[in-house]
Amino acid sequence: WSTPHVPVLHLHSLFELRTCLQEGTVLLDLDAHKKVLSAQPDVWDPELQDCLATLLLCQPLHRTTTAPLRVLTELSLSPCRGTPGNTAGLRNQFKKKLLPGAEVASVMVGEVDFLKKPFPVFLRLREAVTLGSLAEVALPSRFLFILLGPQAKVKAYHEIGRAMATLLTDELFQRIAWQAKHQQDLIAGIDEFLDELTVLPPGKWDLSDRIPPTRCLSSPNKRISMHLREWKSHCNGNTTAAKDRLSLAHLHTSEELERTGRLFGGLIRDIRRKAHWYRSDFSDAMHIQCLSAVLYIYLATVTNAITFGGMLGDATANMQGVLESFLGTAFTGSIFCLFSGQPLTILSSTGPVLVFERLLFSFSEDYGLDYLEFRLWIGLWVAFFGLVLVATEASHLVQYFTRFTEEGFCALISLIFIYDSLKKMLSLAEAFPINWHYRADDVTLYSCTCNLSVPGESQPSSQCLVQASGLLLVSPGILCPRPCLGRGGHLLGNSCPYVPDIALLSFLLFGGTFLCCTTLKHFKSSRYFPTGFRKLVSDFSIILAILIFCAIDAALGLETPKLLVPSELKPTNPMRGWIVFPFGANPWWICLAAVVPAILVTILIFMDQQITAVILNRKEYKLQKGAGFHLDFLCVSLLMIVTSVMGLPWYVSATVISLAHMESLRKESTASAPGEQPEFLGIREQRLTGLVVFILTGVSVFMAPILKYIPMPVLYGVFLHMGVAALNSIQFMDRVRLLLMPAKHQPDHLYLRHVPLRRVHLFTFIQLLCLAMLWVIKSTMAAIVFPVMLLALVGIRKALECIFSLHDLSWLDNIMPEHGCRRVTGSAANRIAPSLLLQSELMHHQGREINISVN
Amino acid sequence: WSTPHVPVLHLHSLFELRTCLQEGTVLLDLDAHKKVLSAQPDVWDPELQDCLATLLLCQPLHRTTTAPLRVLTELSLSPCRGTPGNTAGLRNQFKKKLLPGAEVASVMVGEVDFLKKPFPVFLRLREAVTLGSLAEVALPSRFLFILLGPQAKVKAYHEIGRAMATLLTDELFQRIAWQAKHQQDLIAGIDEFLDELTVLPPGKWDLSDRIPPTRCLSSPNKRISMHLREWKSHCNGNTTAAKDRLSLAHLHTSEELERTGRLFGGLIRDIRRKAHWYRSDFSDAMHIQCLSAVLYIYLATVTNAITFGGMLGDATANMQGVLESFLGTAFTGSIFCLFSGQPLTILSSTGPVLVFERLLFSFSEDYGLDYLEFRLWIGLWVAFFGLVLVATEASHLVQYFTRFTEEGFCALISLIFIYDSLKKMLSLAEAFPINWHYRADDVTLYSCTCNLSVPGESQPSSQCLVQASGLLLVSPGILCPRPCLGRGGHLLGNSCPYVPDIALLSFLLFGGTFLCCTTLKHFKSSRYFPTGFRKLVSDFSIILAILIFCAIDAALGLETPKLLVPSELKPTNPMRGWIVFPFGANPWWICLAAVVPAILVTILIFMDQQITAVILNRKEYKLQKGAGFHLDFLCVSLLMIVTSVMGLPWYVSATVISLAHMESLRKESTASAPGEQPEFLGIREQRLTGLVVFILTGVSVFMAPILKYIPMPVLYGVFLHMGVAALNSIQFMDRVRLLLMPAKHQPDHLYLRHVPLRRVHLFTFIQLLCLAMLWVIKSTMAAIVFPVMLLALVGIRKALECIFSLHDLSWLDNIMPEHGCRRVTGSAANRIAPSLLLQSELMHHQGREINISVN
Repeated sequence: WSTPHVPVLHLHSLFELRTCLQEGTVLLDLDAHKKVLSAQPDVWDPELQDCLATLLLCQPLHRTTTAPLRVLTELSLSPCRGTPGNTAGLRNQFKKKLLPGAEVASVMVGEVDFLKKPFPVFLRLREAVTLGSLAEVALPSRFLFILLGPQAKVKAYHEIGRAMATLLTDELFQRIAWQAKHQQDLIAGIDEFLDELTVLPPGKWDLSDRIPPTRCLSSPNKRISMHLREWKSHCNGNTTAAKDRLSLAHLHTSEELERTGRLFGGLIRDIRRKAHWYRSDFSDAMHIQCLSAVLYIYLATVTNAITFGGMLGDATANMQGVLESFLGTAFTGSIFCLFSGQPLTILSSTGPVLVFERLLFSFSEDYGLDYLEFRLWIGLWVAFFGLVLVATEASHLVQYFTRFTEEGFCALISLIFIYDSLKKMLSLAEAFPINWHYRADDVTLYSCTCNLSVPGESQPSSQCLVQASGLLLVSPGILCPRPCLGRGGHLLGNSCPYVPDIALLSFLLFGGTFLCCTTLKHFKSSRYFPTGFRKLVSDFSIILAILIFCAIDAALGLETPKLLVPSELKPTNPMRGWIVFPFGANPWWICLAAVVPAILVTILIFMDQQITAVILNRKEYKLQKGAGFHLDFLCVSLLMIVTSVMGLPWYVSATVISLAHMESLRKESTASAPGEQPEFLGIREQRLTGLVVFILTGVSVFMAPILKYIPMPVLYGVFLHMGVAALNSIQFMDRVRLLLMPAKHQPDHLYLRHVPLRRVHLFTFIQLLCLAMLWVIKSTMAAIVFPVMLLALVGIRKALECIFSLHDLSWLDNIMPEHGCRRVTGSAANRIAPSLLLQSELMHHQGREINISVN
Repeated sequence: WSTPHVPVLHLHSLFELRTCLQEGTVLLDLDAHKKVLSAQPDVWDPELQDCLATLLLCQPLHRTTTAPLRVLTELSLSPCRGTPGNTAGLRNQFKKKLLPGAEVASVMVGEVDFLKKPFPVFLRLREAVTLGSLAEVALPSRFLFILLGPQAKVKAYHEIGRAMATLLTDELFQRIAWQAKHQQDLIAGIDEFLDELTVLPPGKWDLSDRIPPTRCLSSPNKRISMHLREWKSHCNGNTTAAKDRLSLAHLHTSEELERTGRLFGGLIRDIRRKAHWYRSDFSDAMHIQCLSAVLYIYLATVTNAITFGGMLGDATANMQGVLESFLGTAFTGSIFCLFSGQPLTILSSTGPVLVFERLLFSFSEDYGLDYLEFRLWIGLWVAFFGLVLVATEASHLVQYFTRFTEEGFCALISLIFIYDSLKKMLSLAEAFPINWHYRADDVTLYSCTCNLSVPGESQPSSQCLVQASGLLLVSPGILCPRPCLGRGGHLLGNSCPYVPDIALLSFLLFGGTFLCCTTLKHFKSSRYFPTGFRKLVSDFSIILAILIFCAIDAALGLETPKLLVPSELKPTNPMRGWIVFPFGANPWWICLAAVVPAILVTILIFMDQQITAVILNRKEYKLQKGAGFHLDFLCVSLLMIVTSVMGLPWYVSATVISLAHMESLRKESTASAPGEQPEFLGIREQRLTGLVVFILTGVSVFMAPILKYIPMPVLYGVFLHMGVAALNSIQFMDRVRLLLMPAKHQPDHLYLRHVPLRRVHLFTFIQLLCLAMLWVIKSTMAAIVFPVMLLALVGIRKALECIFSLHDLSWLDNIMPEHGCRRVTGSAANRIAPSLLLQSELMHHQGREINISVN
């Protein structure tokens, strides 16, 4: 079976086929055991009949010669597909690729020397029967077409055979052939087929060249009427369950953000909806892909926890440190995965929260307040406001987050991810400085010795051994840096501040991991190796890349910075305990004053949480279990209480890691025609991967001996990959690329067909400006007003309606999937439908007219 | 103008157009100044006539609304192309893209409210005239089609307009329209067009989707008869000069290897042929691309000279060293470029020659012979044998080098290039060892001091300063390594053998240069930025990559190994002079004994030279000035005399660098339809780039201060790129990739259509085995029998004829270009032609038959 392609026919062959059907034998509703020849009109000599009978009964031999000719015939994706017969050996290899209910149609052509004129037969069996070795795939056959004729015209027969096979793959003709009562019905079917042919001018296309199937029939296929659909569902009844599920999902999507008008109405709906899927949330996780996702996201989460924990520790004098970050991540993450509306979300500390904590801590220091107690009250108020927002169904406001806002936010977070990973690498280079002025010729001049300031202790009591170098030099006067510094000495010498090789090796590991991740991820769409292997490698690409570069690092043996997780369960700052008491340290009115910062935090958390939720619940991810905006926010609010009481960091949804989580759980169809790009079916929506990730995060404290083999540069490389992948997933980047692209090279995006290019560029340009603005705000201390800026973004989007027409905006800004063409839904599809209807009617009209003038 | 694509039409629109032409007004051979309406039959009301006149005269306004509709029409590449009218602003921007002799055909459709029925007009002007702002490009127009009609069917009019435009881009219809005497002739033309239509089944293709033009109409286009060609040449007379040139070139290619039977017959022909082009060999070099090629190949040549010079120095105790290598390369290269048959060839030392020199030197040492004098006699004998081979036209034997042999050799040389560049990098890592066991915690333990063995001189008189490190430490007791070793001391300490950072930075530069070269080279086919810019970047990709990484290296300032060329003009070994005297040092009979090794060297040089020459003169490079196998070998033989007398290395053609040279001089068409892949036109065949490269090599001795900024790892990265590029340029690699590829993903290679896949795989497998064998031989001292192995390869190729059918071999092994489809020439094309003729006749025949049965 070859790559799928659009079948290309000669107009003549079709006309010739029409003549064949008109003049040949058409046997409808035959009993399978009745012979073709016996039902034959007796225009044939008896001896000819014998010859034919022999020939038809020894088909298996003949087919091998004619079979390669028909491999060209395309496999349409219609449920009742017609597949041409082929060599018998491969028969069941492809069966799994076919949809249930598929049938085989056999087309056989050949030349024989005992016939004087062509002998075409078209058969329809009453019941589809399995014809043994006749068909390549052991599926029942219903339609058979046999064309035998005198020699010298074999090419023509072959073309006619191809035409017949193509005709049988046409859904409309299938229906006609299925229902035909007389020969004339078939002829009418061909005529209808001829009516709607698309033609290519002669000499422009070679019959043997293949046209790749159009990835997107951008107009809804006009030929599939309701009528046809009914027939389809009749044809494969056992897929209805899946369809029910899909339609149920669609119902949910529409009601998710509807306002009920009752207190907690949205929340109750969310709970009711999610409860329905709760059992399947665990059973759906039984797939090897989930293992890869768990490892990948676990490493990302741990790295993130360490990074944010370190920064929080800096900001709050270790009142919240790395260990708190670990515990908080593990606890809130597990709870969220168990009870949230969108369990694919990964919780994390975010930048704005970090900035707030820093401000709050320095404020507390300045005014002599107890930081943790103050923070507890803020947290409690935030939880209260959160409950109020849930009760009043405030989450329905997220519908004002259009593509414009959403992409601005997503691009910003992705850029920050990329920027942070590079910044981390540069800080590594600072931590392990390279002596750029090192000259090998001056090797004797480089040294570093211990200079003890206390003159009396010139004879060190402890020595340290150079562990593994070739020349073992143990001279009694040498003190290792640590004991030296411990005794109040200082290091003196021009090689003291430098660390050789570590920084450069880190950059090699960083770049290598990033390139390896990207290459392995794209391996799925490479041409080499079988699909299953490619898919496996692609699914495990991140883990493979990490393992490869950990192995390289371990083999080289240099002291690169490693992932070090805390290994003891006690608060980072010994001054604090595990529970923060609400009263005692601060004046009583602080618990009321905390309302003011709490409002700020509430806005911050609401915006951060909801926009990420919107991004994760995009229509293009084809989520079937629906979102739970109210439930999600309730979880986040309630977790605020716990984290505040225990003095752990506050958590909201993390965009980039959550996107990576979803990306690693993509489901794709296996029942696709060979060589065809698998269809994106959705995400493995379940709670287990997230749960396992956070449980693993929790027990990481005990896994320190294993984790210490993972170099940080490798993890930063993975972060860079995650940022780049998230950035590439948005339409905004496509449009930025358009800015650099001459018009003739532009890809065939749907919006480019409907919106003038200058408008598209203007829109992109405004988005770029907004992004620059957000970046500036985010990178200063003003980051705390960041959520307000998101509101400003919504405002700018509203203002855009003055500049752009609604038509343009609906193409550019509607959260309307764009990449895959199956995803054209909603308003846009409705808008183009009428004009297309008009066009098709027109064409039909013309068709009749012309038919008359030609015949 | 959009990307080129195959126009897709509705069958109906064509039928409707036919009706239009049948019923509408057709005015042939109109005088340009005669009005359409005045020649109109008077079925129209006068007031209607007025309306129409106004409308047609105010076209420029109307066009802007209808124009976008017709942009879809394809631009065929026929010389007399029809282009639809478009907005006036862009008019001359595209003129340079069109072939001379192009004409405009204007198709205008529109709806007006004052007409009751459609009003179609087809005009042919007697003389093509420039219609002012009507056409987008200011070219003369000859054909006009106007279709106006009542409202509500505008889509249909548009489709008819597209059909007309497509019809006018068809070469056959152009001819018919050109010669038509009556309306009926046009109708017949449409019918003929309809006869040969290719059709797509309905619903499989959307009219608005574009089919990319088939890259290769694999069958010679049957519709272009001799008749048509005559008409074409009449149409554009001024391209005949170019064609003459081409046909002359073809004439040459066929006679290059023909045996004349006379002494030096082939040589005389070569000289005569090349003399004809000699003047253009210099004038053709006037292009910016040549500058890039010179810089690129210069750096490659210098690096190669240093590499081989160093190895020769090792092998011959510096009797031939780096300086000799430089001088030899510069001298022989310049002479060869001035007088050879194929001046694109770059001369270099090669591996087998190196092995021979090593053996010869140790033999001379062992038997107390003077190496250079012995070598002189061998060189003289080789030159003599070379002359004999030239006289007897032995070069015609190269026709036995089929694709099998050629690709085996090319793959081997490319692999050696890749292997050598990696080996060089690893040797760098050895030269700058990394202390893998370095522990930052033990920094005080690492030191390296001078241990002077003479106890009295413990106080060094000279100090050396640490040049630029932060802590300047000048302690009197420290001696730099060089003076220390100079005084008989030795270095003591565990940091002495290690050099930090250099090796890792070298790997970063190496990998970076390779990736940068590859990325920039592919930038030409990226979608971003205008074509001119992309082409410039791609042409200068190697130089850009080298400059970028030299800049990075300079900015970092580490002591990476640099390109160091000799800066003094004297023999590397002070024992020898510039002239080797033939007698004196060795017994007299050595000059006769030298015959034996000379035969070996002759075979070695003949094989090495000729197989490279065959590779460089491949048909797919479309060389127009012909090869000069005899002349090339004469040059190589005569240069042997000079190099032997002066004691310089021996030189033959270097495959990989020569291929890189040609690759950097690719000519591509600019007169191509927008967005279309430019056609490969050939190579800039000239003598100047090579000449300048070798002159620069000669004066490199004076350029040492500039060249010392180029790090060696960067140049090794370029070498890796050259090896990979050469390896990818051969069909063998395509077939190796096929081994890893599932059938459905296979690219549409021509040979895959004609040879069963298993046969292709078997052929590839045998080639792989041969390659492995060659590799083993090449990497042992047996490399000296390497030329004999090439002969064995020819033998294996002959033996393959027993396994494979001639048909299969002719597809797999003929030196028949494969990648671009225009290059199907010679025997294969002849072989497939008859069957295609038969097929087209058949189709024609069927066409008639069916026409009758339908009408």
